[in-house]
Amino acid sequence: MENSWATFGRDLHLDLTGPGGLRAALLRALRDAVRSGRLAPGTRLPSSRSLAADLGIARNTVADAYAELVAEGWLSARQGSGTRVAERVLPRATPPAARRSPGPGPGPGPGPGPRPADRADRPRFVLTAGTPDVSAFPRTAWLAAARRALTTAPSEAFGYNTPYGRPELRTVLADYLARARGVRADPDRIVICAGFIQGLALLSRVLGTGRLAVESYGLDFHRAVITRAGLRTVALPVDERGARTDELAALDDVRAALLTPAHQFPTGVPLHPDRRAAAINWARATGGFILEDDYDGEFRYDRKPVGALQGLDPDHVVYLGTVSKSLAPALRLAWMVLPERLVDPVLALKGTGEWQSGALDQLTLAEFLSSGAYDRHLRGMRLRYRRRRDQLVAALADHASQVRVSGIAAGLHAVLELPPGTEQATLRAARRQGLALDGLSRFHDPTAPPASRDALVVAYGTPPDHSFAGAVDALLRALPSGEQEPGEQEPGE
Amino acid sequence: MENSWATFGRDLHLDLTGPGGLRAALLRALRDAVRSGRLAPGTRLPSSRSLAADLGIARNTVADAYAELVAEGWLSARQGSGTRVAERVLPRATPPAARRSPGPGPGPGPGPGPRPADRADRPRFVLTAGTPDVSAFPRTAWLAAARRALTTAPSEAFGYNTPYGRPELRTVLADYLARARGVRADPDRIVICAGFIQGLALLSRVLGTGRLAVESYGLDFHRAVITRAGLRTVALPVDERGARTDELAALDDVRAALLTPAHQFPTGVPLHPDRRAAAINWARATGGFILEDDYDGEFRYDRKPVGALQGLDPDHVVYLGTVSKSLAPALRLAWMVLPERLVDPVLALKGTGEWQSGALDQLTLAEFLSSGAYDRHLRGMRLRYRRRRDQLVAALADHASQVRVSGIAAGLHAVLELPPGTEQATLRAARRQGLALDGLSRFHDPTAPPASRDALVVAYGTPPDHSFAGAVDALLRALPSGEQEPGEQEPGE
Repeated sequence: MENSWATFGRDLHLDLTGPGGLRAALLRALRDAVRSGRLAPGTRLPSSRSLAADLGIARNTVADAYAELVAEGWLSARQGSGTRVAERVLPRATPPAARRSPGPGPGPGPGPGPRPADRADRPRFVLTAGTPDVSAFPRTAWLAAARRALTTAPSEAFGYNTPYGRPELRTVLADYLARARGVRADPDRIVICAGFIQGLALLSRVLGTGRLAVESYGLDFHRAVITRAGLRTVALPVDERGARTDELAALDDVRAALLTPAHQFPTGVPLHPDRRAAAINWARATGGFILEDDYDGEFRYDRKPVGALQGLDPDHVVYLGTVSKSLAPALRLAWMVLPERLVDPVLALKGTGEWQSGALDQLTLAEFLSSGAYDRHLRGMRLRYRRRRDQLVAALADHASQVRVSGIAAGLHAVLELPPGTEQATLRAARRQGLALDGLSRFHDPTAPPASRDALVVAYGTPPDHSFAGAVDALLRALPSGEQEPGEQEPGE
Repeated sequence: MENSWATFGRDLHLDLTGPGGLRAALLRALRDAVRSGRLAPGTRLPSSRSLAADLGIARNTVADAYAELVAEGWLSARQGSGTRVAERVLPRATPPAARRSPGPGPGPGPGPGPRPADRADRPRFVLTAGTPDVSAFPRTAWLAAARRALTTAPSEAFGYNTPYGRPELRTVLADYLARARGVRADPDRIVICAGFIQGLALLSRVLGTGRLAVESYGLDFHRAVITRAGLRTVALPVDERGARTDELAALDDVRAALLTPAHQFPTGVPLHPDRRAAAINWARATGGFILEDDYDGEFRYDRKPVGALQGLDPDHVVYLGTVSKSLAPALRLAWMVLPERLVDPVLALKGTGEWQSGALDQLTLAEFLSSGAYDRHLRGMRLRYRRRRDQLVAALADHASQVRVSGIAAGLHAVLELPPGTEQATLRAARRQGLALDGLSRFHDPTAPPASRDALVVAYGTPPDHSFAGAVDALLRALPSGEQEPGEQEPGE
């Protein structure tokens, strides 16, 4: 019998004497077997008990290896059908986004690189920013909302929809955003889009020419979207009060400024009230726009929520929100709350048909919001992320007290300040520990004056729960030592 | 009690003596009450029995009026919650696409017109092409597929996905397209996109410069997408054998030709074998591409299926398919099967993040296909559409034998040839009958040599089942009379 339990173990050609022990050897062998095609997609694996018996090793070792390979996407474990080799399209597999470096930050992960690379060099732990813990997606609650949406949707919802987005969703969002984020939202000013990036692209094209100010720490692919639309970017410095919006007035030909007021990405500071006022004053004086990227505004832990900047002046601020951090990037659902004078131009551009989003997910999200499931999900995720943050902070205090942590009052990531000049070496050490991780310098706009801040951006929200402790351990091992090596006893102590 | 059954009838201020009888008066009054806001969205209406008693009219009259207003989208009837005023966002309602003229043809309906007009002038029957009968969307089967997709999806599916589209869907599509359409499809060459229009826009941008040949009868917004991408269009004449692909060789600087080989839109003829060969020969000789728009290839009735042109030369034909006609435009799901050399450029362009589709609908469609639900749905819809086509053809034979019908072997629309010079008058008569309908001239490329063909494009697939008979009746009344008035007896007979 092909791939029977008995032959399976032998076919793996396990070299149990290799480096790293039995578990590492098993992982290596299984990955190789999948990669080489010896284990075809869909192949059912023996139970951990059987394989352990067959190989003469502990069952836990096999079970752990399976779990890790499931988490990495090599295997899939479906209820009732055991563990199987994941279905993939070979040879050009689309790799699990959670395992390939999932592009950082508030926008979409995948850069333009079209074809996924081989998965051999995949990290064990991903702490790069941009993706929430997708293993926590509320599948059951989402399905219940989808059922209600599908049952009650009028027939016309299945036809061609307008570029506005479904009215059901815009109505519910207006209430939600007013309540949760202090947004002054009229459904007529809300336009649904397929992710923040699509919104930014539409707005950039509507603005057309001139310059768009961006924060000097931010995302390169945001800047790329802006320049592809024909605008130029100009960097606003970021300090401990957030973006230097007080410098906007001195800049020429700036049509708009893209800001992350609630939680500057990636430095993590909220925009100071003076800077908020300066931004609004600039927009009023010049007729410019603030593009408010509220990518993780729902996640706050220790302090009062920072209301949306848009509430101060809905006629000069475009509010951009998304479910990519709160639910899942895969939904490709986001929204813009627009000043009146931008509604028609944005709809006219979006109406060309290349930019439309599916209606069923919109209707499902409307149900998810109006039923209270969204609030419940956010409460649960807030607790979960806060716990992780506290774990991280405590572990750093215990084992790496030389590292200062900041930006942790909100969001899904922390900034770890490093001793000057150690960022690159620390990143190399992290890679050796199997960690995917970014340094702060990666987010620095190369057109801005040089910055000499060494830090790590640690997205504690990204990994699934079961691998978080391992990720923190690996991080601790990668950090530069202070006076003493973490985990080492001083002689005589 | 506000809006109680007793006050309800009085509040309508019915003028039952108005033109058109009780039913028309009731329709008018209810529409007015909704439009003016006197009946707020969500308001529950009295049962037809109660309102009839209250008004002293026949219950059937009320029930009919309710049914019509539900079909038109003013009211909604949900099982267990009675008839209510439809939820809409006022004053800028997004109107039901099935009632506003749903942009014609194989592509998306809504043109760039951003804000929906008032609904007062909505037609009673929509026979414009472009939308299938969305009231037949298989809600239960789709939900079952969504449940399986949500239950079995790996966590990474909820993260950022690649521009390729989900591998599960591409794998299943490759099998399906090979089996159902004779497409030579490798999952690696399939790229998922958010509708045909997005695919056409991506391809046009990848081609970049030069000319793209289009059929002289086709869709203006397809031509607009091409020109917005920076290409120019050039029209290929269409005759009884389809597009004059034999003329391609004489044209300069043509990079690609957009064709509808299975069922020319809108004239309805399949591309003749000689023309298919000419298209392929041209592409091979010049290195050009054929863009095969297979918008309704799944709907065939009397003749053998016409396999996809792509099967003849997968290296020179881009196959474009969509669920917009087979399931619902609202899903915004389509696919391209690309020649190898176009895969990387298309992915690189799509990968910029502005063009991504939601993953959950992709996974649901994959389940829908692999479970056989798609085949079952298509079989049911084929029967339904065929029955309608036969009804239409029979009604025309009985009452308008002067009108020749063509293009009916496949698809969701027929072409009704009119006496020379009568197209515009017939369209005006149709409007008076409450019909939304297009003449053939609307689809004629204005840059092509003038055509003098008078015809109607009648999309018998568009209306819901319950209003189809009424739509045909209205159409018969609008058609120009031949030797004798339809329904009138010749004296002495």
